Amino acid sequence: MSGRFIVLDGADGCGKSTQARLLADMLVDRGLSVLLTREPGATSVGRQIRRMLLDPATGDLHPMAEAMLFCADRVQHVCEVLRPALERGQVVVCDRYASSTAVYQGYAAGLGWSTMHQLNDMATGGLQPDLLIVLDTPGPHAARTQQYASPDPNGRGGPDRIEQNAETYHRRVRLGFIQYARMLGDRAVVVDGTHSIEQVHAEILTHVERVLQR
Amino acid sequence: MSGRFIVLDGADGCGKSTQARLLADMLVDRGLSVLLTREPGATSVGRQIRRMLLDPATGDLHPMAEAMLFCADRVQHVCEVLRPALERGQVVVCDRYASSTAVYQGYAAGLGWSTMHQLNDMATGGLQPDLLIVLDTPGPHAARTQQYASPDPNGRGGPDRIEQNAETYHRRVRLGFIQYARMLGDRAVVVDGTHSIEQVHAEILTHVERVLQR
Repeated sequence: MSGRFIVLDGADGCGKSTQARLLADMLVDRGLSVLLTREPGATSVGRQIRRMLLDPATGDLHPMAEAMLFCADRVQHVCEVLRPALERGQVVVCDRYASSTAVYQGYAAGLGWSTMHQLNDMATGGLQPDLLIVLDTPGPHAARTQQYASPDPNGRGGPDRIEQNAETYHRRVRLGFIQYARMLGDRAVVVDGTHSIEQVHAEILTHVERVLQR
Repeated sequence: MSGRFIVLDGADGCGKSTQARLLADMLVDRGLSVLLTREPGATSVGRQIRRMLLDPATGDLHPMAEAMLFCADRVQHVCEVLRPALERGQVVVCDRYASSTAVYQGYAAGLGWSTMHQLNDMATGGLQPDLLIVLDTPGPHAARTQQYASPDPNGRGGPDRIEQNAETYHRRVRLGFIQYARMLGDRAVVVDGTHSIEQVHAEILTHVERVLQR
């Protein structure tokens, strides 16, 4: 396998889809053969799984059922899209991958790292990214929460329970991505996503160049 | 958990759905509280997964993707249907379960027993049947193949490659179920499914009575 496999991941709204597109465009401009793809939904079965996950008729899913649906999509994505592209020598830029399942279902929803590593290994057959770029942002609720730095002593005006839960959940996802990146050692970097789009793009590019030169 | 969990399984066309219904009816006649269910497709997500597996637009699936889809359905089936029924003290009669994934994807499609045991454990949280009844039949192709006992020396009239492949596959599935039943020890029985419906029903009943008296 002579290509390079680069994954962008992070919490919802961190800007990874924008950055994945910018990165892919830049690599194409340099004359490289690039494949921009994403999970879930890059294959026929993946699109059906994505629809099912978004359909209100599906009802509440156990995190393990969610993990298995994402991993079923990952199996097809790896064998139909990722491995063939890497074998052709392409640079693959992928929006979300095994890291998302590990963090959302394994860490934030509590199924555990080890179980999700096992499940991801079954899904990927051991295909790991050459570089995982985690975009780290304080999350959509952070700015809002800061308004409540001095809460009303009567409890009015402070964040309600749902906002607090959303904030706690986002913190777990964020912390999960940072822990996951640490586990990958030098095959992962955490990039501060609060800077301008151009600054973030430039920082991502320095990391990617390191991988391309290997 | 005070109920009893009875699974009927076996190759396609072995008669397990008929026998599951007859068994459930008989237990109801005896005044027991019975739940008759099946995999895949007993939950909302399961019905969507079933549709997806049957939809030609889905295309060819890797056996691991199939296994994960069946197991996603199993997660929801266990937590929405099976565990609640067993906790209510019902006798659950289930048409297909973890055994099907182990045999079809693990053994017949070659993913391996051990990987499928791991995946099934994740899906079921360790919920095993009190009794697995495997219905063993020589399969739909057996009678047809016997016609070719003396093949035409010119190769005409013998089973074609597709028929041979189907026959080989059925043999693997059949052998897989027998091996799986052996692994479960006294929690599984293999019943000869070639006898009359009434005879098979009677034999199944003697095994189920043993489990109910425990």
